[in-house]
Amino acid sequence: MLAVIAKLNVKAGKEEDFEKVMLDLAAAVNNNEPGNHLYQLCKDADGNYVVLELYEDEEAIAAHGASEHFKASGAGFKGLMGGPPEITRMTVVE
Amino acid sequence: MLAVIAKLNVKAGKEEDFEKVMLDLAAAVNNNEPGNHLYQLCKDADGNYVVLELYEDEEAIAAHGASEHFKASGAGFKGLMGGPPEITRMTVVE
Repeated sequence: MLAVIAKLNVKAGKEEDFEKVMLDLAAAVNNNEPGNHLYQLCKDADGNYVVLELYEDEEAIAAHGASEHFKASGAGFKGLMGGPPEITRMTVVE
Repeated sequence: MLAVIAKLNVKAGKEEDFEKVMLDLAAAVNNNEPGNHLYQLCKDADGNYVVLELYEDEEAIAAHGASEHFKASGAGFKGLMGGPPEITRMTVVE
C-alpha cells in the first residue's frame, strides 16, 4: 500500500470555496476509486490544508490522476490556489 | 474527527527493530482503541518514518496516550530513537 501527504497552498480568503471543491472531489474519489482507501482533507492550527491519501498500489495512484473527476476538478480549483501542492509519497510499512 | 502526522526520528541501523516495535504497537491500537480510525506506519523515499493517525475526538487521542499498550511500548523503543517525534495535529474537514 502507498501513502501520500499533499500539502495544499490555498489563497487567503478562498478557504470556503476551496473546501467545497475539495470535498466534492473527495466524495467522487470515495465513490469511484476502489484502489483508494483514504482521501481525507485536514486543516492544521495555522489554517494550512493537507490531504492524507492511501492507495492500494501504483496503479491506483495512476487511476486517481487519470480519472475524469480528478481532471474535471481542475476547473473548480481555478483561482483558489496560491501555488503548487507539496506532495510526499511514502510506502506503508506492514 | 482529528488527524495526527507523527514524524519519527529513528537511529540509523535501528530501522528493523523500530518497525517491529511500532507494528506491534499499531496492532494493539487497532485491537484496543475504538476511537482510533487509522494508525498507519509509512516510510518515505529518504527512509524517514511517519505515522498517519485518525481519531474520533480529543477523548480518543487522550485514551491513546493513556493506554497500557502505548505506555508499555516505551520500553521497546528505548535505544531506537534519535530524538523526539515531530507531531502535527489537524482537524478533519468534513
